[in-house]
Amino acid sequence: MRTLVLILDLCGTFAFALSGAMAGVRRRLDIFGILVLSFAAATSGGIARDLLIGAAPPAALQDWRYLAVSLAAGLLCFFWSSLIERLRNPVRMLDSLGLALFAVAGAEKALVFGLSPVMAALLGMLTGIGGGVARDVLLAEIPTVLRSDFYAVAALVGAAVVVGGNMLHFPIVATALAGGLACFCLRMTAIRRGWQLPLARESREHPFSEK
Amino acid sequence: MRTLVLILDLCGTFAFALSGAMAGVRRRLDIFGILVLSFAAATSGGIARDLLIGAAPPAALQDWRYLAVSLAAGLLCFFWSSLIERLRNPVRMLDSLGLALFAVAGAEKALVFGLSPVMAALLGMLTGIGGGVARDVLLAEIPTVLRSDFYAVAALVGAAVVVGGNMLHFPIVATALAGGLACFCLRMTAIRRGWQLPLARESREHPFSEK
Amino acid sequence: MRTLVLILDLCGTFAFALSGAMAGVRRRLDIFGILVLSFAAATSGGIARDLLIGAAPPAALQDWRYLAVSLAAGLLCFFWSSLIERLRNPVRMLDSLGLALFAVAGAEKALVFGLSPVMAALLGMLTGIGGGVARDVLLAEIPTVLRSDFYAVAALVGAAVVVGGNMLHFPIVATALAGGLACFCLRMTAIRRGWQLPLARESREHPFSEK
Repeated sequence: MRTLVLILDLCGTFAFALSGAMAGVRRRLDIFGILVLSFAAATSGGIARDLLIGAAPPAALQDWRYLAVSLAAGLLCFFWSSLIERLRNPVRMLDSLGLALFAVAGAEKALVFGLSPVMAALLGMLTGIGGGVARDVLLAEIPTVLRSDFYAVAALVGAAVVVGGNMLHFPIVATALAGGLACFCLRMTAIRRGWQLPLARESREHPFSEK
Repeated sequence: MRTLVLILDLCGTFAFALSGAMAGVRRRLDIFGILVLSFAAATSGGIARDLLIGAAPPAALQDWRYLAVSLAAGLLCFFWSSLIERLRNPVRMLDSLGLALFAVAGAEKALVFGLSPVMAALLGMLTGIGGGVARDVLLAEIPTVLRSDFYAVAALVGAAVVVGGNMLHFPIVATALAGGLACFCLRMTAIRRGWQLPLARESREHPFSEK
Repeated sequence: MRTLVLILDLCGTFAFALSGAMAGVRRRLDIFGILVLSFAAATSGGIARDLLIGAAPPAALQDWRYLAVSLAAGLLCFFWSSLIERLRNPVRMLDSLGLALFAVAGAEKALVFGLSPVMAALLGMLTGIGGGVARDVLLAEIPTVLRSDFYAVAALVGAAVVVGGNMLHFPIVATALAGGLACFCLRMTAIRRGWQLPLARESREHPFSEK
């Protein structure tokens, strides 16, 4: 069981690292920049969660396997980026799997550290989407997760299922499975059907002064 | 008294969340992105302060009311953004109020956690401006607070008054009031008179290599 | 000895603060923005390391000298930016010195806090490059360290020497000197010879969907 979770977790790390590395390849970063983006995309969500719940040093800095898997994904993209681009569909499925695993694991860890149910669900979502946000901030772009798409909502639903199951004292394995499945299926369906969240109506007034 | 502080604090949170949400509406984010920006703009300053002083998990993740107020502000902007744009002046006043409250509260919390007076004043300022910085970084823009305007200085003055009063052992309520008023009045006057900080003189040399 | 380390550390802080302030001057920030960039560029690497290893509040917030040196560098750039641009070579040397010192000190602090050797070397590198990353993120640019150049690798080598020496139980002063020298010489040689890391080959396929 524990080995299975670890393998799934490393698969998710690998998928997220691929997304970071490919973004770096497209922006013509050098090999170092690509490896940094791999590691940042794979681990920032978990690192942010661990800092916020007070679990320093973060898990991603305590287990060398996350680093190793991230670097392997980065090197793969550096040398065979056109191959990875052709494997778009399996990579996307791996990415959805990673999202589901990270959301579930993030929510569970937040509960263990005593956060309230609502915040645990949010931290689960943050664990899932944080890597992509860090990747995009490092590339000086508006995070795609804020822009479009059903990505974060799927993570939030998965995390909420875990939190709900915990409140109802359901067995942890069952709720983790249910949450992960909910997130994964929602995300895959959203990709297949092109689901989008609504945008705000265009405003025609002159811009409101920021600050 | 405690209730009054809470109400003021939630007013500030609301104002900051509005600024985040309006920025998201203008960039055509989806509803999820707008809610994330609301929450980030309202709470990042306090979260950064809490992480820096070692108070994890941050207060914003322990009290659901900050989340609820942020989401309410985000939904308001999503559905009635043109209304909010028309209410520019009251929103600005609310924002200045939020700045004053956050700067004062941030400085006091840093003092309680044993930081030195200078650093407590800086952390008070950070509490006030951090939300706007996070909002702008997420939108891939140079933070407006770095660019122009008397915003951060007002927060710093308010925080410094609190710290000074603490060093002179003045009663805490009096110094908090004085600090908050100083920040609020300075900010409102700066808006009304168009005060700006000086810019560096344009350099005509070729750019200095960064790194 | 301890005084020497402090002086070198403050020299590094000064050099990093100069790089932040000059970047701010070039983007026409106001005086406040320039001072923020000075402090951020000088201390973000160390602050990130301290948060990650659980050493809050970070050292940069506990010793007023880092703040004072950063502000002095910022004011210098604000008033005499053309002078600093003309002193490009000494400033670069100072910057390489700062990189070496920060990488060595960062790796040693991470070891003291019980991180594994690989992670300690990474955190040493992060201490060296974090300031530049924060400066560029605040300016909404892709961090130059991800883009080109032998900067991060020099920091990593210096940190790795420290960690290796620690594992072999060599005296700490000797390994610190060796690590710092390795980093400094590598960086200066890379500048003089124009060493670059390899870029990924341009891909001609249509872009891989991110997320």
